Amino acid sequence: MEIGLKIGVLGTGTVGRTVAAGLHGLGYDVFVGTRDPRKTLERTDPDRYGNPPFKTWLENHPGIRYGTFAQAAEHGAIVVIATNGNGTLPALEAAGEYNLNGKVLIDISNPLDFSQGFPPLLTICNTDSLGEQIQRRFPNAKVVKTLNTVNAALMVAPEQLAKGDHTIFMSGNDLEAKATVSEILRSLGWKDVIDLGDITTARGPEMYLPLWARLFQTIGGPNFSIRVVR
Amino acid sequence: MEIGLKIGVLGTGTVGRTVAAGLHGLGYDVFVGTRDPRKTLERTDPDRYGNPPFKTWLENHPGIRYGTFAQAAEHGAIVVIATNGNGTLPALEAAGEYNLNGKVLIDISNPLDFSQGFPPLLTICNTDSLGEQIQRRFPNAKVVKTLNTVNAALMVAPEQLAKGDHTIFMSGNDLEAKATVSEILRSLGWKDVIDLGDITTARGPEMYLPLWARLFQTIGGPNFSIRVVR
Repeated sequence: MEIGLKIGVLGTGTVGRTVAAGLHGLGYDVFVGTRDPRKTLERTDPDRYGNPPFKTWLENHPGIRYGTFAQAAEHGAIVVIATNGNGTLPALEAAGEYNLNGKVLIDISNPLDFSQGFPPLLTICNTDSLGEQIQRRFPNAKVVKTLNTVNAALMVAPEQLAKGDHTIFMSGNDLEAKATVSEILRSLGWKDVIDLGDITTARGPEMYLPLWARLFQTIGGPNFSIRVVR
Repeated sequence: MEIGLKIGVLGTGTVGRTVAAGLHGLGYDVFVGTRDPRKTLERTDPDRYGNPPFKTWLENHPGIRYGTFAQAAEHGAIVVIATNGNGTLPALEAAGEYNLNGKVLIDISNPLDFSQGFPPLLTICNTDSLGEQIQRRFPNAKVVKTLNTVNAALMVAPEQLAKGDHTIFMSGNDLEAKATVSEILRSLGWKDVIDLGDITTARGPEMYLPLWARLFQTIGGPNFSIRVVR
């Protein structure tokens, strides 16, 4: 993969930070975007998971640029959606369709509803998926769904678990976009990348999340994945 | 597991036949049930998948008894539901609640709707599962959901794939029933049995089916499974 390739990451939560740092560490030129950059920087308390405020994280990651959703999307030749599922479409609206058209749009989010507690329900499933919703709303973006089946730490460092001997999925309509994403996945350490087919196949990995959530409870943490044995 | 343990298998399709033969081969005392035993025996044509008629299968499996859903359920100390998902609750109604009360009821079926073609949709998901529906309808049966994540051949012979190095799930409210089912699973060759928790956790493995269906298409057949890497 081209060193210095420009990637915009939408989202400043754990997933956004982890993915941004992981990609930056590989030599990509990363720009992180959020809705209101000043407000996010003004926070001084740890978040509800105990993570330090974004300002601290940003100071610890010189070289990663930071601004609005639109600036991050404009910067990226590739844009990664790393918001929570409810925030995905609003973040992309804020990013601006003109900043997404023609680009590879990597959707790693999940349509989860935690309002009833844990395990979450899905807000979209069975006859549709978040990946499809994004592709319908932004028909000129090249949406590729991937990485939504593991937690943030494993997304960018799969070798942390079983020397990377587990599987990641990929769904999308554009073959060239999937080839690009596959290269990025391999540069992150993913050895077994399964291309499931067009964007409708995103229903599969998204509907795996209820099983993931029960495994999280049974195993007692997020440091697990699945390998497709065949 | 006790040799000669009586098991009733509901269903004469591929899953019912394969599971019945597998359990019989291990020394269990198996009785297969169907809605209309005479009608099923009268069929002389292969089914839509090219399998020989049930009569031929039954003749080739001496020692396996055969009759109605009610007779099979009455016979079994353990009852296995091996119908298709739409047929599950009607088959259990025909089996009779008095033949199920107090027994271990192993649900291996999936709530799949093929009316729109392949891949199928789920008829129940997200806020409910077929396992839960069965448990609600038959509150005195001890429902254990398992084996629904692999095809029939792998259910009873997991070692056919990667020497059995893959995972099977189990959900149910009754710990003793799950211990019994776990023993049966191990006698079939399953080495990695994950108890997900109560019957509501059946939503996880049932909602995995849309991913299974896409993998079936990608891999080009049903001879695959997943291993939970942790």
